[in-house]
Amino acid sequence: MNVLALSGSLRAQSINSAFCRAAAQLATAPIRVTVFDGLGRLPLFNPDLEKRPPQPVRRFRSAVNDADALLVASPEYAHGISGVMKNALDWLVSHEGTVFKPIALVNTSPRAQQAYEALREVLQTMSTRIIPEASIAIPLLGHCVTEAAMLDNHAVRMAIQSLLAALATGIAPRQNGRATDT
Amino acid sequence: MNVLALSGSLRAQSINSAFCRAAAQLATAPIRVTVFDGLGRLPLFNPDLEKRPPQPVRRFRSAVNDADALLVASPEYAHGISGVMKNALDWLVSHEGTVFKPIALVNTSPRAQQAYEALREVLQTMSTRIIPEASIAIPLLGHCVTEAAMLDNHAVRMAIQSLLAALATGIAPRQNGRATDT
Repeated sequence: MNVLALSGSLRAQSINSAFCRAAAQLATAPIRVTVFDGLGRLPLFNPDLEKRPPQPVRRFRSAVNDADALLVASPEYAHGISGVMKNALDWLVSHEGTVFKPIALVNTSPRAQQAYEALREVLQTMSTRIIPEASIAIPLLGHCVTEAAMLDNHAVRMAIQSLLAALATGIAPRQNGRATDT
Repeated sequence: MNVLALSGSLRAQSINSAFCRAAAQLATAPIRVTVFDGLGRLPLFNPDLEKRPPQPVRRFRSAVNDADALLVASPEYAHGISGVMKNALDWLVSHEGTVFKPIALVNTSPRAQQAYEALREVLQTMSTRIIPEASIAIPLLGHCVTEAAMLDNHAVRMAIQSLLAALATGIAPRQNGRATDT
Protein backbone atom coordinates (compact mmCIF):
# COMPACT_ATOMS: atom_id res chain seq x y z
CA MET A 1 0.00 0.00 0.00
CA ASN A 2 1.58 3.20 -1.19
CA VAL A 3 0.85 6.38 0.76
CA LEU A 4 1.91 9.70 -0.75
CA ALA A 5 2.58 12.34 1.91
CA LEU A 6 2.03 15.99 1.04
CA SER A 7 3.29 18.81 3.26
CA GLY A 8 1.80 22.25 2.73
CA SER A 9 4.95 24.09 3.80
CA LEU A 10 8.16 24.69 1.88
CA ARG A 11 10.06 25.80 4.99
CA ALA A 12 13.13 23.61 5.53
CA GLN A 13 12.29 23.23 9.24
CA SER A 14 8.57 22.68 8.61
CA ILE A 15 6.84 20.64 11.32
CA ASN A 16 4.42 19.25 8.74
CA SER A 17 7.25 18.08 6.49
CA ALA A 18 9.02 16.57 9.51
CA PHE A 19 5.80 14.75 10.40
CA CYS A 20 5.56 13.34 6.86
CA ARG A 21 9.17 12.12 7.04
CA ALA A 22 8.59 10.58 10.47
CA ALA A 23 5.57 8.72 9.07
CA ALA A 24 7.75 7.47 6.20
CA GLN A 25 10.32 6.21 8.73
CA LEU A 26 7.74 4.43 10.87
CA ALA A 27 5.74 2.78 8.11
CA THR A 28 6.16 -0.97 7.99
CA ALA A 29 5.11 -3.46 5.31
CA PRO A 30 2.67 -3.63 3.67
CA ILE A 31 2.50 0.18 4.01
CA ARG A 32 5.06 2.42 2.39
CA VAL A 33 4.96 6.20 2.84
CA THR A 34 6.70 8.38 0.25
CA VAL A 35 7.09 12.10 0.93
CA PHE A 36 6.35 14.00 -2.28
CA ASP A 37 9.06 16.56 -2.92
CA GLY A 38 7.52 18.38 -5.87
CA LEU A 39 4.82 20.72 -4.48
CA GLY A 40 7.30 23.61 -4.55
CA ARG A 41 8.01 23.06 -8.23
CA LEU A 42 4.38 23.17 -9.35
CA PRO A 43 3.46 26.23 -11.38
CA LEU A 44 0.65 28.39 -10.09
CA PHE A 45 -2.64 26.85 -11.23
CA ASN A 46 -3.92 28.06 -14.57
CA PRO A 47 -6.91 26.32 -16.17
CA ASP A 48 -5.58 27.37 -19.60
CA LEU A 49 -2.65 24.97 -19.10
CA GLU A 50 -4.94 21.96 -18.63
CA LYS A 51 -4.70 21.04 -22.31
CA ARG A 52 -0.96 20.45 -22.00
CA PRO A 53 -0.14 20.26 -18.29
CA PRO A 54 3.47 21.22 -17.48
CA GLN A 55 5.84 18.40 -16.55
CA PRO A 56 5.79 19.06 -12.75
CA VAL A 57 1.98 18.78 -12.87
CA ARG A 58 2.13 15.51 -14.83
CA ARG A 59 4.65 14.13 -12.34
CA PHE A 60 2.44 15.16 -9.39
CA ARG A 61 -0.68 13.61 -10.91
CA SER A 62 1.21 10.45 -11.76
CA ALA A 63 2.41 10.15 -8.13
CA VAL A 64 -1.19 10.65 -6.94
CA ASN A 65 -2.40 7.98 -9.38
CA ASP A 66 0.21 5.53 -8.09
CA ALA A 67 -0.75 6.15 -4.45
CA ASP A 68 -3.40 4.11 -2.65
CA ALA A 69 -3.90 7.02 -0.25
CA LEU A 70 -2.65 10.51 0.54
CA LEU A 71 -1.41 11.87 3.84
CA VAL A 72 -2.13 15.62 3.88
CA ALA A 73 -0.49 17.89 6.47
CA SER A 74 -0.57 21.64 6.08
CA PRO A 75 0.18 24.69 8.16
CA GLU A 76 -2.36 27.44 8.70
CA TYR A 77 -1.40 30.88 7.39
CA ALA A 78 -3.64 33.79 8.43
CA HIS A 79 -6.47 31.37 9.30
CA GLY A 80 -6.34 29.83 5.80
CA ILE A 81 -4.89 26.84 3.98
CA SER A 82 -1.33 27.52 2.83
CA GLY A 83 -1.22 28.72 -0.76
CA VAL A 84 1.30 25.98 -1.49
CA MET A 85 -1.17 23.25 -0.49
CA LYS A 86 -4.19 24.90 -2.09
CA ASN A 87 -2.31 25.40 -5.35
CA ALA A 88 -1.39 21.71 -5.39
CA LEU A 89 -5.00 20.72 -4.73
CA ASP A 90 -6.22 23.09 -7.47
CA TRP A 91 -4.18 21.02 -9.93
CA LEU A 92 -5.99 17.88 -8.73
CA VAL A 93 -9.57 19.23 -8.84
CA SER A 94 -10.17 18.23 -12.45
CA HIS A 95 -7.94 15.15 -12.26
CA GLU A 96 -9.92 11.93 -12.32
CA GLY A 97 -7.27 10.05 -10.34
CA THR A 98 -8.18 12.10 -7.26
CA VAL A 99 -11.78 10.87 -7.01
CA PHE A 100 -12.40 8.50 -4.07
CA LYS A 101 -8.72 8.73 -3.07
CA PRO A 102 -8.48 7.85 0.65
CA ILE A 103 -6.99 10.67 2.73
CA ALA A 104 -5.39 10.94 6.15
CA LEU A 105 -5.82 14.61 7.06
CA VAL A 106 -3.40 15.58 9.80
CA ASN A 107 -3.38 18.70 11.95
CA THR A 108 -0.02 19.18 13.68
CA SER A 109 -1.20 22.39 15.36
CA PRO A 110 -4.68 21.74 16.80
CA ARG A 111 -5.04 25.31 18.03
CA ALA A 112 -5.10 26.26 14.35
CA GLN A 113 -8.46 24.81 13.39
CA GLN A 114 -9.68 27.01 10.54
CA ALA A 115 -7.29 25.87 7.82
CA TYR A 116 -7.91 22.28 8.85
CA GLU A 117 -11.67 22.67 8.46
CA ALA A 118 -11.18 24.51 5.16
CA LEU A 119 -8.98 21.66 3.93
CA ARG A 120 -11.63 19.15 4.95
CA GLU A 121 -14.25 21.08 2.97
CA VAL A 122 -12.01 21.35 -0.11
CA LEU A 123 -11.03 17.67 -0.04
CA GLN A 124 -14.66 16.60 0.36
CA THR A 125 -15.68 18.87 -2.51
CA MET A 126 -13.00 17.16 -4.61
CA SER A 127 -14.72 13.81 -3.88
CA THR A 128 -11.79 12.37 -2.01
CA ARG A 129 -12.54 9.98 0.84
CA ILE A 130 -11.26 11.35 4.17
CA ILE A 131 -10.69 8.45 6.56
CA PRO A 132 -11.84 9.76 9.98
CA GLU A 133 -9.79 7.27 12.03
CA ALA A 134 -6.63 8.26 10.13
CA SER A 135 -7.30 12.00 10.39
CA ILE A 136 -5.73 13.09 13.62
CA ALA A 137 -4.92 16.28 15.48
CA ILE A 138 -1.56 16.01 17.21
CA PRO A 139 -0.15 18.98 19.14
CA LEU A 140 3.48 19.05 17.99
CA LEU A 141 3.98 22.81 17.70
CA GLY A 142 6.21 24.15 20.42
CA HIS A 143 7.57 20.92 21.86
CA CYS A 144 8.17 18.27 19.20
CA VAL A 145 9.12 19.94 15.95
CA THR A 146 11.81 17.82 14.29
CA GLU A 147 11.67 14.39 12.69
CA ALA A 148 14.17 13.10 15.26
CA ALA A 149 12.09 14.40 18.18
CA MET A 150 8.96 12.81 16.73
CA LEU A 151 10.67 9.46 16.25
CA ASP A 152 11.99 9.73 19.80
CA ASN A 153 8.59 10.48 21.35
CA HIS A 154 6.56 7.43 22.36
CA ALA A 155 3.16 9.11 22.10
CA VAL A 156 3.92 10.54 18.67
CA ARG A 157 5.22 7.20 17.40
CA MET A 158 2.06 5.51 18.63
CA ALA A 159 -0.12 8.17 17.01
CA ILE A 160 1.63 7.78 13.65
CA GLN A 161 1.46 3.99 13.76
CA SER A 162 -2.20 4.12 14.71
CA LEU A 163 -2.87 6.59 11.86
CA LEU A 164 -1.15 4.30 9.35
CA ALA A 165 -3.04 1.25 10.58
CA ALA A 166 -6.33 3.13 10.29
CA LEU A 167 -5.38 4.28 6.81
CA ALA A 168 -4.56 0.71 5.77
CA THR A 169 -7.95 -0.42 7.05
CA GLY A 170 -9.61 2.49 5.27
CA ILE A 171 -7.88 1.64 2.01
CA ALA A 172 -8.78 -2.03 2.19
CA PRO A 173 -12.49 -1.86 1.19
CA ARG A 174 -11.58 -0.24 -2.06
CA GLN A 175 -8.95 -2.78 -2.92
CA ASN A 176 -11.14 -5.75 -2.05
CA GLY A 177 -14.09 -4.54 -4.07
CA ARG A 178 -15.76 -1.25 -4.71
CA ALA A 179 -19.16 -2.01 -3.20
CA THR A 180 -18.33 -0.29 0.07
CA ASP A 181 -16.33 2.43 -1.52
CA THR A 182 -18.70 5.37 -1.57
CA MET B 1 -6.11 57.59 -4.86
CA ASN B 2 -4.40 54.51 -6.22
CA VAL B 3 -6.30 51.24 -6.14
CA LEU B 4 -4.41 48.04 -6.92
CA ALA B 5 -6.68 45.34 -8.35
CA LEU B 6 -5.79 41.69 -7.74
CA SER B 7 -7.48 38.85 -9.62
CA GLY B 8 -7.16 35.36 -8.18
CA SER B 9 -7.33 33.65 -11.57
CA LEU B 10 -4.62 33.28 -14.22
CA ARG B 11 -7.09 32.15 -16.89
CA ALA B 12 -6.97 34.47 -19.91
CA GLN B 13 -10.78 34.67 -20.02
CA SER B 14 -11.13 35.04 -16.23
CA ILE B 15 -14.28 36.89 -15.16
CA ASN B 16 -12.47 38.26 -12.12
CA SER B 17 -9.64 39.64 -14.25
CA ALA B 18 -12.19 41.14 -16.65
CA PHE B 19 -13.95 42.76 -13.69
CA CYS B 20 -10.66 44.28 -12.51
CA ARG B 21 -9.98 45.68 -16.01
CA ALA B 22 -13.52 47.06 -16.24
CA ALA B 23 -13.02 48.82 -12.90
CA ALA B 24 -9.78 50.29 -14.23
CA GLN B 25 -11.64 51.57 -17.30
CA LEU B 26 -14.44 53.13 -15.28
CA ALA B 27 -12.36 54.79 -12.57
CA THR B 28 -12.32 58.56 -12.79
CA ALA B 29 -10.14 61.11 -11.02
CA PRO B 30 -9.15 61.20 -8.23
CA ILE B 31 -9.35 57.39 -8.32
CA ARG B 32 -7.02 55.33 -10.47
CA VAL B 33 -7.28 51.54 -10.64
CA THR B 34 -4.23 49.54 -11.75
CA VAL B 35 -4.60 45.84 -12.45
CA PHE B 36 -1.60 44.03 -11.00
CA ASP B 37 -0.17 41.61 -13.55
CA GLY B 38 2.38 39.84 -11.40
CA LEU B 39 0.50 37.33 -9.23
CA GLY B 40 1.31 34.56 -11.71
CA ARG B 41 5.01 35.30 -11.45
CA LEU B 42 5.20 35.06 -7.66
CA PRO B 43 7.09 32.03 -6.38
CA LEU B 44 5.25 29.68 -4.06
CA PHE B 45 5.44 31.09 -0.54
CA ASN B 46 8.42 29.93 1.49
CA PRO B 47 9.14 31.60 4.86
CA ASP B 48 12.83 30.75 4.40
CA LEU B 49 12.96 33.27 1.53
CA GLU B 50 11.78 36.14 3.75
CA LYS B 51 15.37 37.22 4.48
CA ARG B 52 15.96 37.97 0.81
CA PRO B 53 12.57 38.08 -0.91
CA PRO B 54 12.74 37.27 -4.65
CA GLN B 55 12.28 40.16 -7.07
CA PRO B 56 8.63 39.35 -8.00
CA VAL B 57 7.78 39.45 -4.29
CA ARG B 58 9.55 42.78 -3.80
CA ARG B 59 7.71 44.19 -6.82
CA PHE B 60 4.36 42.96 -5.46
CA ARG B 61 4.96 44.39 -2.01
CA SER B 62 6.09 47.67 -3.49
CA ALA B 63 2.88 47.89 -5.54
CA VAL B 64 0.85 47.18 -2.39
CA ASN B 65 2.76 49.88 -0.51
CA ASP B 66 2.04 52.40 -3.25
CA ALA B 67 -1.68 51.60 -3.27
CA ASP B 68 -4.19 53.42 -1.08
CA ALA B 69 -6.48 50.40 -1.32
CA LEU B 70 -6.74 46.94 -2.86
CA LEU B 71 -9.56 45.51 -4.94
CA VAL B 72 -9.60 41.74 -4.41
CA ALA B 73 -11.57 39.46 -6.74
CA SER B 74 -11.02 35.71 -6.72
CA PRO B 75 -12.70 32.63 -8.09
CA GLU B 76 -13.71 29.75 -5.87
CA TYR B 77 -12.02 26.41 -6.60
CA ALA B 78 -13.46 23.36 -4.80
CA HIS B 79 -15.11 25.60 -2.19
CA GLY B 80 -11.79 27.26 -1.38
CA ILE B 81 -9.81 30.40 -2.21
CA SER B 82 -7.77 29.94 -5.39
CA GLY B 83 -4.22 28.89 -4.64
CA VAL B 84 -3.02 31.79 -6.79
CA MET B 85 -4.75 34.34 -4.54
CA LYS B 86 -3.87 32.60 -1.27
CA ASN B 87 -0.22 32.33 -2.30
CA ALA B 88 -0.14 36.06 -3.03
CA LEU B 89 -1.73 36.85 0.33
CA ASP B 90 0.72 34.52 2.12
CA TRP B 91 3.52 36.78 0.85
CA LEU B 92 1.74 39.78 2.42
CA VAL B 93 1.03 38.26 5.86
CA SER B 94 4.32 39.37 7.38
CA HIS B 95 4.52 42.54 5.29
CA GLU B 96 3.94 45.67 7.34
CA GLY B 97 2.58 47.60 4.37
CA THR B 98 -0.52 45.40 4.40
CA VAL B 99 -1.71 46.43 7.86
CA PHE B 100 -4.83 48.66 7.79
CA LYS B 101 -4.87 48.56 3.98
CA PRO B 102 -8.45 49.30 2.84
CA ILE B 103 -9.93 46.47 0.78
CA ALA B 104 -12.84 46.16 -1.65
CA LEU B 105 -13.64 42.43 -1.59
CA VAL B 106 -15.64 41.49 -4.67
CA ASN B 107 -17.54 38.28 -5.34
CA THR B 108 -18.35 37.90 -9.05
CA SER B 109 -20.11 34.59 -8.47
CA PRO B 110 -22.39 35.01 -5.44
CA ARG B 111 -23.48 31.36 -5.55
CA ALA B 112 -19.89 30.56 -4.59
CA GLN B 113 -19.89 31.87 -1.05
CA GLN B 114 -17.34 29.74 0.77
CA ALA B 115 -14.17 31.08 -0.82
CA TYR B 116 -15.51 34.61 -0.34
CA GLU B 117 -16.06 34.03 3.39
CA ALA B 118 -12.65 32.35 3.67
CA LEU B 119 -11.05 35.36 1.97
CA ARG B 120 -12.82 37.69 4.38
CA GLU B 121 -11.46 35.71 7.33
CA VAL B 122 -7.91 35.68 5.92
CA LEU B 123 -7.92 39.40 5.10
CA GLN B 124 -9.28 40.26 8.55
CA THR B 125 -6.64 38.05 10.18
CA MET B 126 -4.03 39.99 8.18
CA SER B 127 -5.33 43.21 9.81
CA THR B 128 -6.48 44.73 6.55
CA ARG B 129 -9.53 46.96 6.65
CA ILE B 130 -12.36 45.52 4.53
CA ILE B 131 -14.69 48.34 3.48
CA PRO B 132 -18.21 46.86 3.67
CA GLU B 133 -19.81 49.35 1.27
CA ALA B 134 -17.14 48.60 -1.35
CA SER B 135 -17.36 44.84 -0.92
CA ILE B 136 -20.03 43.68 -3.29
CA ALA B 137 -21.47 40.47 -4.67
CA ILE B 138 -22.30 40.86 -8.33
CA PRO B 139 -23.67 37.89 -10.31
CA LEU B 140 -21.64 38.05 -13.53
CA LEU B 141 -21.05 34.33 -14.09
CA GLY B 142 -23.06 33.01 -17.00
CA HIS B 143 -24.28 36.25 -18.52
CA CYS B 144 -21.68 39.01 -18.34
CA VAL B 145 -18.23 37.52 -18.52
CA THR B 146 -16.06 39.85 -20.60
CA GLU B 147 -14.71 43.31 -19.92
CA ALA B 148 -16.64 44.64 -22.94
CA ALA B 149 -19.92 43.12 -21.72
CA MET B 150 -19.39 44.60 -18.28
CA LEU B 151 -18.66 48.06 -19.66
CA ASP B 152 -21.77 47.72 -21.84
CA ASN B 153 -24.05 46.73 -18.98
CA HIS B 154 -25.70 49.63 -17.15
CA ALA B 155 -26.20 47.78 -13.86
CA VAL B 156 -22.61 46.52 -13.80
CA ARG B 157 -21.25 49.98 -14.60
CA MET B 158 -23.31 51.47 -11.79
CA ALA B 159 -22.14 48.76 -9.37
CA ILE B 160 -18.49 49.38 -10.20
CA GLN B 161 -18.83 53.14 -9.91
CA SER B 162 -20.65 52.78 -6.61
CA LEU B 163 -17.94 50.40 -5.35
CA LEU B 164 -15.20 52.87 -6.29
CA ALA B 165 -17.03 55.77 -4.66
CA ALA B 166 -17.47 53.74 -1.47
CA LEU B 167 -13.82 52.78 -1.55
CA ALA B 168 -12.79 56.43 -1.93
CA THR B 169 -14.95 57.33 1.06
CA GLY B 170 -13.48 54.41 2.98
CA ILE B 171 -9.95 55.47 2.19
CA ALA B 172 -10.53 59.08 3.16
CA PRO B 173 -10.50 58.75 6.99
CA ARG B 174 -7.03 57.26 6.86
CA GLN B 175 -5.67 59.95 4.60
CA ASN B 176 -7.22 62.81 6.56
CA GLY B 177 -6.00 61.54 9.91
CA ARG B 178 -5.71 58.20 11.57
CA ALA B 179 -8.12 58.75 14.47
CA THR B 180 -10.97 56.88 12.78
CA ASP B 181 -8.77 54.32 11.16
CA THR B 182 -9.06 51.32 13.43
